[in-house]
Amino acid sequence: MTKQSFTAATIRKRLYNILQNDDDDSKAGRMSEYFLIFLILLNVLAVILSSVNEIYREYQTFFDFFEKFSLAVFTVEYFTRFWVIAEIDDSKTAWQNRKEWLFSTGSLIDFVAIFPAYLNFFVPMNLRLLIVLRLLRLFKLTRYFLALRILLNVIKREKESFKAVIFILLILIILAASGIYAVENKAQPEEFESIPKAMWWAVVTLTTVGYGDVTPVTMIGKFLGAMITILGVGLAALPAGILASGLATELELRKKNSEDLLKNMIMDRQLDLNEENHNIEKIRKELGLTEEQALMVIEDIKVDLVYKKQSNFCPNCGYHLHNHQSDNLQKSDEQ
Amino acid sequence: MTKQSFTAATIRKRLYNILQNDDDDSKAGRMSEYFLIFLILLNVLAVILSSVNEIYREYQTFFDFFEKFSLAVFTVEYFTRFWVIAEIDDSKTAWQNRKEWLFSTGSLIDFVAIFPAYLNFFVPMNLRLLIVLRLLRLFKLTRYFLALRILLNVIKREKESFKAVIFILLILIILAASGIYAVENKAQPEEFESIPKAMWWAVVTLTTVGYGDVTPVTMIGKFLGAMITILGVGLAALPAGILASGLATELELRKKNSEDLLKNMIMDRQLDLNEENHNIEKIRKELGLTEEQALMVIEDIKVDLVYKKQSNFCPNCGYHLHNHQSDNLQKSDEQ
Amino acid sequence: MTKQSFTAATIRKRLYNILQNDDDDSKAGRMSEYFLIFLILLNVLAVILSSVNEIYREYQTFFDFFEKFSLAVFTVEYFTRFWVIAEIDDSKTAWQNRKEWLFSTGSLIDFVAIFPAYLNFFVPMNLRLLIVLRLLRLFKLTRYFLALRILLNVIKREKESFKAVIFILLILIILAASGIYAVENKAQPEEFESIPKAMWWAVVTLTTVGYGDVTPVTMIGKFLGAMITILGVGLAALPAGILASGLATELELRKKNSEDLLKNMIMDRQLDLNEENHNIEKIRKELGLTEEQALMVIEDIKVDLVYKKQSNFCPNCGYHLHNHQSDNLQKSDEQ
Amino acid sequence: MTKQSFTAATIRKRLYNILQNDDDDSKAGRMSEYFLIFLILLNVLAVILSSVNEIYREYQTFFDFFEKFSLAVFTVEYFTRFWVIAEIDDSKTAWQNRKEWLFSTGSLIDFVAIFPAYLNFFVPMNLRLLIVLRLLRLFKLTRYFLALRILLNVIKREKESFKAVIFILLILIILAASGIYAVENKAQPEEFESIPKAMWWAVVTLTTVGYGDVTPVTMIGKFLGAMITILGVGLAALPAGILASGLATELELRKKNSEDLLKNMIMDRQLDLNEENHNIEKIRKELGLTEEQALMVIEDIKVDLVYKKQSNFCPNCGYHLHNHQSDNLQKSDEQ
Repeated sequence: MTKQSFTAATIRKRLYNILQNDDDDSKAGRMSEYFLIFLILLNVLAVILSSVNEIYREYQTFFDFFEKFSLAVFTVEYFTRFWVIAEIDDSKTAWQNRKEWLFSTGSLIDFVAIFPAYLNFFVPMNLRLLIVLRLLRLFKLTRYFLALRILLNVIKREKESFKAVIFILLILIILAASGIYAVENKAQPEEFESIPKAMWWAVVTLTTVGYGDVTPVTMIGKFLGAMITILGVGLAALPAGILASGLATELELRKKNSEDLLKNMIMDRQLDLNEENHNIEKIRKELGLTEEQALMVIEDIKVDLVYKKQSNFCPNCGYHLHNHQSDNLQKSDEQ
Repeated sequence: MTKQSFTAATIRKRLYNILQNDDDDSKAGRMSEYFLIFLILLNVLAVILSSVNEIYREYQTFFDFFEKFSLAVFTVEYFTRFWVIAEIDDSKTAWQNRKEWLFSTGSLIDFVAIFPAYLNFFVPMNLRLLIVLRLLRLFKLTRYFLALRILLNVIKREKESFKAVIFILLILIILAASGIYAVENKAQPEEFESIPKAMWWAVVTLTTVGYGDVTPVTMIGKFLGAMITILGVGLAALPAGILASGLATELELRKKNSEDLLKNMIMDRQLDLNEENHNIEKIRKELGLTEEQALMVIEDIKVDLVYKKQSNFCPNCGYHLHNHQSDNLQKSDEQ
Repeated sequence: MTKQSFTAATIRKRLYNILQNDDDDSKAGRMSEYFLIFLILLNVLAVILSSVNEIYREYQTFFDFFEKFSLAVFTVEYFTRFWVIAEIDDSKTAWQNRKEWLFSTGSLIDFVAIFPAYLNFFVPMNLRLLIVLRLLRLFKLTRYFLALRILLNVIKREKESFKAVIFILLILIILAASGIYAVENKAQPEEFESIPKAMWWAVVTLTTVGYGDVTPVTMIGKFLGAMITILGVGLAALPAGILASGLATELELRKKNSEDLLKNMIMDRQLDLNEENHNIEKIRKELGLTEEQALMVIEDIKVDLVYKKQSNFCPNCGYHLHNHQSDNLQKSDEQ
Repeated sequence: MTKQSFTAATIRKRLYNILQNDDDDSKAGRMSEYFLIFLILLNVLAVILSSVNEIYREYQTFFDFFEKFSLAVFTVEYFTRFWVIAEIDDSKTAWQNRKEWLFSTGSLIDFVAIFPAYLNFFVPMNLRLLIVLRLLRLFKLTRYFLALRILLNVIKREKESFKAVIFILLILIILAASGIYAVENKAQPEEFESIPKAMWWAVVTLTTVGYGDVTPVTMIGKFLGAMITILGVGLAALPAGILASGLATELELRKKNSEDLLKNMIMDRQLDLNEENHNIEKIRKELGLTEEQALMVIEDIKVDLVYKKQSNFCPNCGYHLHNHQSDNLQKSDEQ
């Protein structure tokens, strides 16, 4: 019994490392990761292809089988994660860990990836919708790709700014739409029949997409349209600006952080800078820094050391002092 | 009599706090605020929906009633504000305060929100125009949403740049329009009949909206058009750039300011950083800082304190040393 | 004789101050300036209006007279400037000054503003072209509007970057055009008849104008088009980016410069910061700084003074030192 | 024999300097460079013109001859480079140098410039494709134009960010396409027949090109389209943003580096700042700095020297003081 439970425990532990533990670098862990990524991408491809009638009719059976297969795999994955997640925090009970996990972003994504398919058994859905819903599996990639996580981070961090800008943009769209509606409605009762319809024009114009399916035709309409465009374009470009700068700062920050980390590690462990091969290289890889970044850090340290040597004397007694650099602060403490 | 006036005074004072005083955190104050915001949004919705003929015909009576109701509320609001604003500055007479308020942005917005409806009684207006004018009530939201105020601030601050850019853009549009007019007029006497007409093309092109309703067709026209586009796109994007960067700096500034404020407050009041619950939390909320921002500030202070303690004296001779802080400034404070 | 020449000299001097001397603040100077600006703007308006056939036919005589009048004024202006410019530099002869002026940007603009009209007497030109050429008078505004001068400065300063980007953009356009030409030519022999024709599509697409008058229709054409768009959009946006950032830095620089200037002036002249009314205000206006900018500068100075007081002691002998702040430099010199 | 080989060696050396050595400033070197640039540009022009049927038919023989001629020249160039590259690194054998060169970017570009033409002898290709492939010769310009090299650098450096953004953009496109496919397919079975087809709409919309050849027509389709556009535009603009900022930083970096280099050179060689004509001017040119940049550097140095002299000693007791320079570092150098 104990033995049995013991095996179960080890299996769970093992699976946990394979599925959840990022530090774990075992072959099995990498394999399972690649397999899942591959399967997700295949799913996306399948959805895209099966939307092409000729192809779908041709390979229907295959597509259906593949969908069943993927669904099975993702379901198993989901419940396995649910089971093994108990390992994540020993200080909590297995079920506490599971409850927390259930409402984590990751698990919700996993859930959304399989739920619609099962829902369909009970409430048959529009086939096309069902197919598209499968694409939500794309978000399972966030677990494996930093880029997506960073993007989500930025969006989360800039949430406030986004809300503000979207809110402003909305107001702008409403005003633009009603303005153009007021002046163009007579000339084009079809296209500018109501403000909601005019909003389509407003969005298409303010985002500078400009399909040209709806455009003002009256002189005054064109004048108003021109005004709106010139003044509004700026606002429509704001979300882009926020996102871009946000992403830039985020990347910059990450770089800086890991550089500082490396610097501190080297300084604390008093690593020899000249035979930098083993230790530093190892840390560098862990922090995901490029070699030149590491070199810059080392240069930086060397410079500090030089100055340290020089500025280590008390101007009064001439005795030796320590001198630590940290942004805009000078600190001297006992040796 | 005194009693009566006394009561009036208290009522006025009370209403003032409810309507105008931002610091006031009373239930009544919040209620009235939410009610007004809600009513404004409902108005916007009503205008949008009533522009849809089917809907309007259906619920005409309701829409008319709602409009009458809103108009009444906003009118009452306007005159109440006019009455209670007397409280704003005791050093001035009630009427001085009111006169100042009358010409403040806020009151003008409130006025514009109700004026057209009344004007309509005397000079019946185009119904559609009247409906749209109601949307000006949207601007009443500026009182309640920081985002809008910030935006207005930025626009006000960057006024000069905007004027300059718009001016340049205007020149560019005129030149582009007349250029294309000169080369395309023969081929498309309709679309490029005159420079003002060609301006529509210029605006649509330079803002990269590009509806495609008017495009050069002659070889030379296309060549000129390409030149104009490549060189002009930059200028058309300038307002966007100015606004974006302006908004970014504004938000950054606000964050920094309130952080510094918090820091100074803590330092001055010598608040205990460890039982930071009551006081600091309170200040934080006042300054509208997120908790992590507050934490960073506190960390910052701790660091300063540590270094101060350490670096004021030479550990050997005990003599006083310089302590370098605050970027680009050197300060040594005698103990 | 001498008297005569003497009078001529004074007239010339007077006119020089009125026309050329920016510092000159005389009523006549301002009048002439406003008159010329007004005339230029009227000319632009006239050109735009006279391009509208109905209007032109109606007021032909007026337009023709106005053109003759403006031409006369600008011609007189040109030759007067040519005459009085002799005053600009006493160290040179009148004719040296004039020769230099002749090839200065300003004079060339003035020349271009009148030249076509005279040329027309000898070689009758296309009327439409002639009208448009009149718009070159717009550039005469650069003399009076800082915004335009700044823009020209930026463009001049970023010349290198622009060349590089335009060059890259050109290559991109050629490659995009020939690529789409290769794949779409069969399907649309009309629109994609040749690479030059395909370039129109390339420009319209890479600048995201996207008229839609020419678009790929084949599957592969659309695929290539999508690739080109996604990758190329970045490059097409570069001139915009360069210009925007260039303008931003330029404005920032100007602000900073005049702030520093103010600071130094105050420090050198040891102006009393408390009764800042007359002198500082005067300087501020000269430098075109806003009041709050001036206030910030003054605050800045006060801070410096405070620190100065504190850090004025030599840690060794305890004697008093001077301490000047300037970016990242500390300097101590004799009292 | 030796003599013979000796001559070959000198010829090779000479040719190496002419073709590969950038420092070499000989007339021959410049001549050959200009000739090759000129030939490349002519080739581009030829390709563009020969794509115009009228022109091609007219001058076919000339175009064919010119192609043969260019091909010959580029082939000779290629093999000559292959031969002379042996000189590049004496520490390696001729063939080692050649092998390395063969797989360098430069040589690959040279190879691609001639390969298709020869391939055509064996596998006759689509004429149009063949013509377009000739345009790859454009990339030979990278050898001569810094702008292109810088751009490639930036793209290489920002590779990671690009991958991330393109990846995100791809996901966005897929989601947008399938979303619009789901809602518009019924209304426009033609345009939105499948997700791949809908992708064309997604790309055209998210990049704000907006041809208007495919647009949503249903109410819900337009609503979804508007959402996608407003939220997606930001992401589509990211590559642009990355590239722009990347290029800006790159240019800034280059400027700064060469300025520092100049500064160090002057300081190390103790060049006299007053008779700065020969040496400094020479270095300046080598570093490709503008004169004003050089002047700023010199000013900078002068300032440093002044402060150094002044701030090393207390004017009262003559004792040594600290001298704070270089942001965030404190250094005191014993005299």
